[in-house]
Amino acid sequence: METTSPLAVALISGGLDSMVAAASMKAAGYRLLALSIDYNQRHQIELAAARRIAGVLGAERHVVLPLDLRAFGGSALTAEIDVPKSGVGSDIPVTYVPARNTIFLSLSLGWAEAAGARDLVIGVNALDYSGYPDCRPEFVAAFEDMAALATKAGVEGDRFRIHAPLQHMTKADIVREGTRLGLDLGMSWSCYDPAPGGVHCGLCDSCRLRAKGFEEAGIPDPTRYAG
Amino acid sequence: METTSPLAVALISGGLDSMVAAASMKAAGYRLLALSIDYNQRHQIELAAARRIAGVLGAERHVVLPLDLRAFGGSALTAEIDVPKSGVGSDIPVTYVPARNTIFLSLSLGWAEAAGARDLVIGVNALDYSGYPDCRPEFVAAFEDMAALATKAGVEGDRFRIHAPLQHMTKADIVREGTRLGLDLGMSWSCYDPAPGGVHCGLCDSCRLRAKGFEEAGIPDPTRYAG
Repeated sequence: METTSPLAVALISGGLDSMVAAASMKAAGYRLLALSIDYNQRHQIELAAARRIAGVLGAERHVVLPLDLRAFGGSALTAEIDVPKSGVGSDIPVTYVPARNTIFLSLSLGWAEAAGARDLVIGVNALDYSGYPDCRPEFVAAFEDMAALATKAGVEGDRFRIHAPLQHMTKADIVREGTRLGLDLGMSWSCYDPAPGGVHCGLCDSCRLRAKGFEEAGIPDPTRYAG
Repeated sequence: METTSPLAVALISGGLDSMVAAASMKAAGYRLLALSIDYNQRHQIELAAARRIAGVLGAERHVVLPLDLRAFGGSALTAEIDVPKSGVGSDIPVTYVPARNTIFLSLSLGWAEAAGARDLVIGVNALDYSGYPDCRPEFVAAFEDMAALATKAGVEGDRFRIHAPLQHMTKADIVREGTRLGLDLGMSWSCYDPAPGGVHCGLCDSCRLRAKGFEEAGIPDPTRYAG
């Protein structure tokens, strides 16, 4: 009865976390609508990974939505600001994109309501992360409360659920979970600033967290890093 | 000292309400960043009105951001569904665009944070309106709470304020307020389904509410309606 299983809108960035989060929803019996936002970030290579991931997860549909956040600027990922390479710090870094997850969840919510889905999934986690405010459980909960008031379905008594299955996982936990789910994690892309030859730079926060995850999980890292 | 007055991001649809809302923020001393979303709605003519309005309000910048919500469908304004013409009903109509104001406020929030603005303005009202859930005060309040948790500025102790100065006004009040502010309200565009010759159809909900507003305010309606 595959056609009667519920639909979930899954944000797929092309990265490791969103891949594992979407796969865990699929493993829980959901059919997936995959959403990727082409926000003209520097790492367009992520979108190629997102397409491959949506394919292997058997998404019913994959929308890659162009959205030019360079019009607003304010981040190393959307403006001409250098991506830091000196290690993960304790402040919110310049790679923070203002309101990114709010924007992405809003778009997911719009598609979910239009498609009759009540479940959204996002790969945020608040342990081995870059300190972005919109990755924290209190943000996810507040978004869910807002969604109940924002929508026709909410007014009519339905509840949209924002699933963040990795919320309390370390990066090592995520690597282990992806492996348990049988995923080829090498298919995902994490680097903010790809090195020549289209390989991970190995130095940006995102590469550092990825490499640390495989290492701490004791699972061979399939990623090709520069240098 | 105009350059030290605070910045506000104003959603400008090209319609009457957002024009009056933005003008009231300007009258309150804010400098405006005008944001219009080109969501491939049928009424592209609204965007031409938005450009004129951003101009007369002296916006520091006007971003018209393309966002193709047709990728999701689910509304008479984004899909091939007829716009109803039989009068304003009590149900949420098919012109409801799933999560539209959530998406638009999220984008405003992103620009506001990137630009150092802490104020957002939206022309929603919940009296003479089409029953859209994302026009109600409880939605606006929930969005503001969520924004405090979603952003770097919020985490650092700032608060984003969502101004909805028309929230408790009737359409007649809005027409009166726009007139008091010296606006040429004929510059705005309300119709969901323009008639031949680029005039307001006079029959859709939005035209009916507009005409009723001028009539009840006792102010001559500058709008050209078909028929």
